[in-house]
Amino acid sequence: MAPTTTVPIGTLPSGSVTGRLASVYSEVQKTRVDHALPLPSVLKHPFTILDGPPSSAAGNPDEIAKLFPHLFGQPSAALAPSGAVQTQKKLKIGVVLSGGQAPGGHNVISGIFDYLQERAPGSTLYGFKGGPAGIMKCKYVELTSEYIYPYRNQGGFDMICSGRDKIETPEQFKQAEETAKKLDLDGLVVIGGDDSNTNACLLAENFRSKNLKTSVIGCPKTIDGDLKCKEVPTSFGFDTACKIYSEMIGNVMIDARSTGKYYHFVRLMGRAASHITLECALQTHPNITIIGEEVAAKKLTLKNVTDYIVDVVCKRAEINYNYGVILIPEGLIDFIPEVQHLIAELNEILAHDTVDEGGLWKKKLTDQSLKLFDFLPQAIQEQLMLERDPHGNVQVAKIETEKMLIQMVETELEKRKQEGKYNGEFKGQSHFFGYEGRCGLPTNFDATYCYALGYGAGALLHSGKTGLISSVANLCAPVEEWTVGGTALTSLMDVERRHEALRYAKVWGRDIVRSLTLAYAKRLFPDSNP
Amino acid sequence: MAPTTTVPIGTLPSGSVTGRLASVYSEVQKTRVDHALPLPSVLKHPFTILDGPPSSAAGNPDEIAKLFPHLFGQPSAALAPSGAVQTQKKLKIGVVLSGGQAPGGHNVISGIFDYLQERAPGSTLYGFKGGPAGIMKCKYVELTSEYIYPYRNQGGFDMICSGRDKIETPEQFKQAEETAKKLDLDGLVVIGGDDSNTNACLLAENFRSKNLKTSVIGCPKTIDGDLKCKEVPTSFGFDTACKIYSEMIGNVMIDARSTGKYYHFVRLMGRAASHITLECALQTHPNITIIGEEVAAKKLTLKNVTDYIVDVVCKRAEINYNYGVILIPEGLIDFIPEVQHLIAELNEILAHDTVDEGGLWKKKLTDQSLKLFDFLPQAIQEQLMLERDPHGNVQVAKIETEKMLIQMVETELEKRKQEGKYNGEFKGQSHFFGYEGRCGLPTNFDATYCYALGYGAGALLHSGKTGLISSVANLCAPVEEWTVGGTALTSLMDVERRHEALRYAKVWGRDIVRSLTLAYAKRLFPDSNP
Repeated sequence: MAPTTTVPIGTLPSGSVTGRLASVYSEVQKTRVDHALPLPSVLKHPFTILDGPPSSAAGNPDEIAKLFPHLFGQPSAALAPSGAVQTQKKLKIGVVLSGGQAPGGHNVISGIFDYLQERAPGSTLYGFKGGPAGIMKCKYVELTSEYIYPYRNQGGFDMICSGRDKIETPEQFKQAEETAKKLDLDGLVVIGGDDSNTNACLLAENFRSKNLKTSVIGCPKTIDGDLKCKEVPTSFGFDTACKIYSEMIGNVMIDARSTGKYYHFVRLMGRAASHITLECALQTHPNITIIGEEVAAKKLTLKNVTDYIVDVVCKRAEINYNYGVILIPEGLIDFIPEVQHLIAELNEILAHDTVDEGGLWKKKLTDQSLKLFDFLPQAIQEQLMLERDPHGNVQVAKIETEKMLIQMVETELEKRKQEGKYNGEFKGQSHFFGYEGRCGLPTNFDATYCYALGYGAGALLHSGKTGLISSVANLCAPVEEWTVGGTALTSLMDVERRHEALRYAKVWGRDIVRSLTLAYAKRLFPDSNP
Repeated sequence: MAPTTTVPIGTLPSGSVTGRLASVYSEVQKTRVDHALPLPSVLKHPFTILDGPPSSAAGNPDEIAKLFPHLFGQPSAALAPSGAVQTQKKLKIGVVLSGGQAPGGHNVISGIFDYLQERAPGSTLYGFKGGPAGIMKCKYVELTSEYIYPYRNQGGFDMICSGRDKIETPEQFKQAEETAKKLDLDGLVVIGGDDSNTNACLLAENFRSKNLKTSVIGCPKTIDGDLKCKEVPTSFGFDTACKIYSEMIGNVMIDARSTGKYYHFVRLMGRAASHITLECALQTHPNITIIGEEVAAKKLTLKNVTDYIVDVVCKRAEINYNYGVILIPEGLIDFIPEVQHLIAELNEILAHDTVDEGGLWKKKLTDQSLKLFDFLPQAIQEQLMLERDPHGNVQVAKIETEKMLIQMVETELEKRKQEGKYNGEFKGQSHFFGYEGRCGLPTNFDATYCYALGYGAGALLHSGKTGLISSVANLCAPVEEWTVGGTALTSLMDVERRHEALRYAKVWGRDIVRSLTLAYAKRLFPDSNP
């Protein structure tokens, strides 16, 4: 029996070598660390870079042009086979992991490293530690073959760790410049999501404006799957995370069917987008799936969503099925307009008025918000009134949506039972699948995709490109036929409005994908109501 | 990219065949369904049954003898190679799944089926549906090669489903007798945990006392891992569940290290025993592991446990590590004597007195219980006062121990911060890993072990044995060398005391294992305090 001892890579001292690996890695980790990765054929031979036509922006091109005078309009780039041999100049490159973990991050780094080893021998790769703060504080480690080896095809960001700091103020740009000069950097690869790639573009613009030689290339990372567009068909980590969650959901579904007495409400990671929930639904076919973007598009209320679930529970009870599995996106209540109104009103009231025990304060709510507040389970009402963030605001993110829905479904079912419309048994079980999926072993797809993203980023930096996001596409074809290039980050940008007045430029794949999500959702629920 | 569509087996109509499987099963499910299982060599050839010496009981043999006059003292049985060929009589056998799911249950059934096909051709196997209730209601399905095939080496109990009913009253025994007679059963296999095997033995005794030909054989199932003893080295499902949880814990550990800002409190299934927590700790090496049996043995208080965690958090903060992973068994608070006292007092007060808002009722608590109650976070206090089961009792099982500990650790850390003894940042994240592990694909060990348990159960029934639990041992050796036999259920029994007066006979592997768990715990924390 003797189970294999699994020691997570995090417990390894930096720079571990094969001998030590052999004793602490599990069988599957050992197999994966030596798993050979295929490269797109354009990366296996000498290549040249073909520039496309001048680019624009995803929206508001005039504003984007003003914000990025040195980068706006630059063409995207595509790698093409060539007989000519690449110049052999040595490069000094930095790499940084930014934001939440996604399986495959280590492979982007090993892709960059292998490109430099094979195409620009004698080059140096620095890993900035703990995210963008590592750039500002010039905290780094020189990445060697031995240092990288134990992390090949392994999950996590622990090779150099990550962080959520941003480089955006003049002082912060100054610090980044100093680091770039001190290390004599030819280039920097920023591995991150939409915010991090927006930052990468600001940094590229800044370096260019100061005539620094340091180029900046972004890489599309987020398990949420909401950084994608025509040129960047997917962000890495999404494939692995969805497969991990789907396996867990599949286990819970079999459990539900074997026992026959629980409704499992599974909340899935994805605050701003429901892509994970949708993909997991397509992989596992649960009884009910709620898609946030659909709820928003149809302007559904919390009562609508509850009734939809209750209707299905009642129909199943009629044929004696008192069990099932329901998928919910983490950010569901952020998608419900009436909830947003209630939160805004509560924040206003809590900031200016005293809240009396008798409930007179409630009179300050609009009719719609009062109705919603009274509809909420008591525990959620208390949570809304009591738990505040440091700015005194209601903490929406802390609400456990799956538990709230269970309570609301219970209440409605009880009502229908008394009206003689329901005669089943309902027992809810709540789950949240999140952190388990962010650091799993990357799937073959994510491992290969990330390696190509990194290898391609090396090629773009080698060619002196800046302000591009590494783009590997044609992903439904065999790896051999994948295309490799870089997309102008400014061409993906639009202007985001926050708090009415403030406007930010932002890499903006999300809206495009929202429409896609809706299209999928319609496929999934062709005649659903909602 | 195109992820493999995984359709859980639950969506298959009964009796699906290969052609259909090919289109709905994932690659891994298809590979597993055809995975060939090795058999212990004693099961590959003709065998004979060797009886051991007369047996006694694990405790209170006189009382056990009185309860089981027809079975007490019977020898355990071991299979041994023999030149003689087994009789070829046809058998009619029933099988039932009892209690919570554990990976491998389907393989026990396929093991019984294959035994009958190969050693007693022309036999019939009936699957009772929905647990022991299926026996009492005579609700069954005849299991054929085609019916069983899609479930081979797959998780879940959905082939015939399970249930928690017990056969223990005279009327229920009568119903079971009627089913046994109606189906002309030569034998019945009960797949279940300690309670279900106790029931299996009562049923065997009952059938024997009525001179029915129906023999009863038990099989050791529970992912909790607490049904084991010398003759039954492990219950099935434990190996798979621990590996599933350990993979998830490993992912969370890498996440913790990559981010560097969260303490993850992971509660693991196992209410009456901490074996899963201990095994997962051995597989993953988290920062802190709390073992319920150790807490009970040392008579620790909730404050002791909190302080132990807080001490470690403070020490790690001194070297700038503000993250980590802490494992907690589901039943932790059941192991803390002072919590048991408080619950008993609360139940008493809530049953007889009115609870005033001013808190005068608290004066009825003993000093120790009052101190503990005041130490509990407010949310837990409210939960204890408000949520009752149908008998009016406090619902201890509903307390989310991991969240309670996070709150208590936060409070204590805040205190130490104000005393200048702690200067770190603490953010807790809570997890419960339970249902995901009960229906996963069985590991090679569980798949093989279960198949041998089922095949061996077939052999025992074929030899007319009753009141035994199928016992496959020598599990650290290659499968070839595994031993196969049956252990007298009465020899594993002791008398359990419930509510002072009531006394039940019960299969009782647990206490033996508690000592073992403690021994392990000491290995893990050689000089821990606690």
